[in-house]
Amino acid sequence: MSINYKVVINILGMLLILNGAFMLLCVPISLIYGEEHLTFIASGLLVISTGFILRILTRYSELYDVRKKEGYLVVTGGWLVMSFFGSLPYMISGAIPGLTDAFFETLSGFSTTGASILNDIESVDKGILFWRSMTQWIGGMGIIVLTIAILPFLGIGGIQLFIAESPGISPDKLKPRIKETAKRLWLIYVGLTVTEIFLLWLGGMSFYDAANHGMTTMATGGFSTKNASIAYFDSPFIQYVIILFMMLAGTNFSLTYFGLHWNFKKIVNNEEFRFYVGFIMSLTILVIILVSGISHGPFEESFRNSMFQVVSIVTTTGYVTYDYTSWSYLLTILFFMMLFAGASAGSTAGGIKIIRHIILLKNSILELKRIIHPSAVLPVRFNGRAVSTNITSNILAFMIIYIAVFGVGTIIMSSLGNDFETALGSTATCLGNVGPGIGSVGPANNFAHLSMSSKWFLSFLMIVGRLELFTVLVLFSPYYWRKF
Amino acid sequence: MSINYKVVINILGMLLILNGAFMLLCVPISLIYGEEHLTFIASGLLVISTGFILRILTRYSELYDVRKKEGYLVVTGGWLVMSFFGSLPYMISGAIPGLTDAFFETLSGFSTTGASILNDIESVDKGILFWRSMTQWIGGMGIIVLTIAILPFLGIGGIQLFIAESPGISPDKLKPRIKETAKRLWLIYVGLTVTEIFLLWLGGMSFYDAANHGMTTMATGGFSTKNASIAYFDSPFIQYVIILFMMLAGTNFSLTYFGLHWNFKKIVNNEEFRFYVGFIMSLTILVIILVSGISHGPFEESFRNSMFQVVSIVTTTGYVTYDYTSWSYLLTILFFMMLFAGASAGSTAGGIKIIRHIILLKNSILELKRIIHPSAVLPVRFNGRAVSTNITSNILAFMIIYIAVFGVGTIIMSSLGNDFETALGSTATCLGNVGPGIGSVGPANNFAHLSMSSKWFLSFLMIVGRLELFTVLVLFSPYYWRKF
Repeated sequence: MSINYKVVINILGMLLILNGAFMLLCVPISLIYGEEHLTFIASGLLVISTGFILRILTRYSELYDVRKKEGYLVVTGGWLVMSFFGSLPYMISGAIPGLTDAFFETLSGFSTTGASILNDIESVDKGILFWRSMTQWIGGMGIIVLTIAILPFLGIGGIQLFIAESPGISPDKLKPRIKETAKRLWLIYVGLTVTEIFLLWLGGMSFYDAANHGMTTMATGGFSTKNASIAYFDSPFIQYVIILFMMLAGTNFSLTYFGLHWNFKKIVNNEEFRFYVGFIMSLTILVIILVSGISHGPFEESFRNSMFQVVSIVTTTGYVTYDYTSWSYLLTILFFMMLFAGASAGSTAGGIKIIRHIILLKNSILELKRIIHPSAVLPVRFNGRAVSTNITSNILAFMIIYIAVFGVGTIIMSSLGNDFETALGSTATCLGNVGPGIGSVGPANNFAHLSMSSKWFLSFLMIVGRLELFTVLVLFSPYYWRKF
Repeated sequence: MSINYKVVINILGMLLILNGAFMLLCVPISLIYGEEHLTFIASGLLVISTGFILRILTRYSELYDVRKKEGYLVVTGGWLVMSFFGSLPYMISGAIPGLTDAFFETLSGFSTTGASILNDIESVDKGILFWRSMTQWIGGMGIIVLTIAILPFLGIGGIQLFIAESPGISPDKLKPRIKETAKRLWLIYVGLTVTEIFLLWLGGMSFYDAANHGMTTMATGGFSTKNASIAYFDSPFIQYVIILFMMLAGTNFSLTYFGLHWNFKKIVNNEEFRFYVGFIMSLTILVIILVSGISHGPFEESFRNSMFQVVSIVTTTGYVTYDYTSWSYLLTILFFMMLFAGASAGSTAGGIKIIRHIILLKNSILELKRIIHPSAVLPVRFNGRAVSTNITSNILAFMIIYIAVFGVGTIIMSSLGNDFETALGSTATCLGNVGPGIGSVGPANNFAHLSMSSKWFLSFLMIVGRLELFTVLVLFSPYYWRKF
C-alpha cells in the first residue's frame, strides 16, 4: 500500500483551521491593550482559509481510516505545518521579522521547548506574547494526545508500559481513542491551567501574566512574559505555586486522573511517580547542600532557587529564577546532566523520561546477574509486572539513538561555529525540549545570537526530541518509503 | 559454593613472581646507563618473594580448577596487585615518591592507558622509564589473554562475536585455552614489537627509545620517553612507522594471525576490520580538511599530524605529535568524541570498541524497521551471521552502563574541583584507556596537577574501563557475593 497523501493533507488542513482559530483568540488581547490587532485577524483568516482549501481539495478522504503509514507523516507534518503557519503573527507584526527566527520561536513554542530568540521580551506587544504562550499550551495539548493515543498506535515504544495504566484506553482504532483521551485528559489539562492562573493572580501577578504563565507551566514550556523569567516575580508564593504546577505538569496525566477520582493507591503504587518525586527531592537536597557553600543569601531563598531550578529543568519547563551556571562548575555539570532526565511519560514533559531511566537502570543491574547466571531468564520488572524483551530492547535502542543524536548534534553545532559548552548545551536542551542550556545559551542568555544554520538545526532537534525520535527518524529510513 | 580464595591468592602469587621477574629485567638497563640499579634488585626480589610466600601459603590449591566466581576476583585483583607492587620501583628510587602518584602511573601502565603524572619525563632515570614502558607492554600481554581467553569464560559479553573467529579456540576449560592463546597470539605480539623496534631504530631513534616506543605502541599504551611525546622525533619515517603499528596494535590479533598465514579472505570479509579501517580513513580525511583551514605549515605535515592524532586516539594509544585542542573548538569536540571509539575487539586497545558501535548502529537502524513491522523478527547480522538477542542486549547494556559511568564519573570529577572540560576529558580518557583528554588534561598537559582524590578516582575508572566494565562491576553486585 502506498501512502494516502490525501488523508494526510486533510488532517493537516484541520490542524490549520484549529491553529487559525487560536490566533483569532488573540484579537481580544490586542484590543484590550490597544495594540495593533489586524495581525491576528489577517494571519488567523489566512491560516483558516488555507486549512479549508486543503480540506476541500482532499474532501471525501475522511472516509478512509488513518493508517500507521500516514500516522508518522501526520504527526511530523502536523508539528511542522503548525510551526510554519504559527510564525505568521510574528512576521506580519514585525515582532520577529525573519523567517528563521520566527520559525524557531514558534517551533520552540509548539514543541514546548521554550528556547527563545527574543532579546527584549517586554518590548513585544502583549497580544504577540499571548500567542507565544499559547503556542506552548497548544503544543502541550498535542503532546497529551500524541503520547497517550497516537504513539502506541504508531508502534513507538516503551509507551505501552504506562498505556496499560491509562483510563479507558484499549488498543483500538485511532479515532475513538483520541476522542476518549481528549475528553478526559484535556479536561484535567484545562482544569489545572485555570487553577494555576487563579493562584498566580491571587499571588499578585496581573491577570495577563498569570494567564501566560499558567499556559506555559502546564505545557512544561517555559516561555515567560518577562526578560528575567520567573526571577521577575519576587514572591515566594508565586514561585512555590509554579514549582507545584511544574511538578503536576511533569506527572503522568493518567495518574492525575486517578488522583482526581480519589484512587490514590494507583498513584502510590506507580513506580515512575515514586521515582520521579524521589529523584526531584534528592536532587533538590543535593543542590541545596552544594549551593549553601556558595550563596550568602537567606536559606529560604537558596532553598527556593535550588528547588525551582531542579524542578524547572527536570520537568523540561525551563523557567529561570537563578542562573545555575553562575553557581559553580559542579552545579553547571549537574544541571547539564539534568537536561537528559525528562519527567514522567504521559505528561507534557520532553526528554528521555524517568520511566526509561528506571528500565535502563534495572536492566543494567540485571545484566550483572545475567552474566553470573547466563542460563536464567531475567526480565525487567516494572510496576510489579515483567516487561517484555521487545519493550526493553526498544528503550535501550531509544537511549542509544538519543545519545547518538546528541553526539552528532554536538559535532554539527560545533562545526557551525559554536564553542564547546554552547554546542553541548544547546544540543542537549533542544533535543530534550527544556529551554535553557549551558555556555552562551545558559539561563541568563537566549538563542538570538546563534547563526541561522544553528537555529535551523536546533529546530530540527526540537522536533526530533519532541516526537520521541522514532516518529521523525522513521521518515528517514528506507523501510518507510517501501510499500508495506 | 563459596569463593575459593586460596585459588585466587595462588594465582595472584604467580602474577607477582612474573611481575618481579620483569623488574629484574630492568637491572641491565640501569647498569648500562650507569644508574642506581639497587632499586630494581630490591623491588624485584621483594615482589618475587612475596609471590612465593603467597603461593606457599596456598599450595595444593592448584589442584582446584579456577571457576567463574574466582575468575572475576583473579582478573580485577590481578590488575590491582600488579599495579600496587609495580609502583615499588618508582617509590624506592624516589622518581615518584608518593603512593598516589606512583600507583596512578603504574595502573596507567598496566591498563595501557598512558595518562602520566610526570612533569619532566626526560629527567627520570632511563631504567625507571624502561620499567614504565614495560608496564604497558605487560598490560598489553594481559589484555590479549583477557579478552580472547578469560572474558568469554567469565560470560562477559559481546566477545563471543569475534571469539568464533579466533584460531583454535573452543569454549573449553580455562587453562588449556590460555596456553593455546599465549602461544599463538603472544608470538605475534612479540614479533610485531621487535619489528617495530627495528624499524624505529632504522629511522634514527636510539635503540633505547626504539625499544620503549615499540613496547608502548603495541600495547596501545602511549607512554613516551620524551616530554614532547612523538613530536620530539621530527622524522616523517618514524611517525609513519608508529601510525602503522598503532593500526596493527588496534587490529584483532586473531586477524593478524590469519594474515600471517596468508589467509587474507578472513581479513577482508571481517566487518569490524573493514569498518575500523574505513572509520580511521574517513576521520583522517575530515580532520585534514578541517585542519587545512587553520594550519599554515606544509600539507604533508598537517596530513601526518591529522592522521597520527586520529589513529593515536581511535586506537587508544595516546601518543601526541600535535595538540589537537589548539586547532579549533570543532576539532576539540571531534577528538573528545573519538575518546569513545576504541579500536577492534581482540586487540590491545581499550574503550568501547568498533564492534560494539557496529552492532549498536545496525540495531538502531533495525529498530526503525521493527517499529514499522512489529511482528517481524529482525536480528542484527554481523559477518553474515545473525547475532543472538542475548549478545545484542548485552552490548546495549554495556553501552548504557559505559555512558552512565561516564556521566556519574564526570559529576564526581567535577565535585572534586575540576573544571567542566577537564572533568569530561579526564573521565572519558581514563575510562577509555586513551591517555590525553581535553581541558587541563589535554595532549599538551598531564595529570600531575590533579588532586589526590581525582587521581584515585581516575585509577578506578582506568581499571573499570580496561576490564570491560562487567568484570569489575560484578564484584559490586549482591549477586556475586551470594552463593551460586
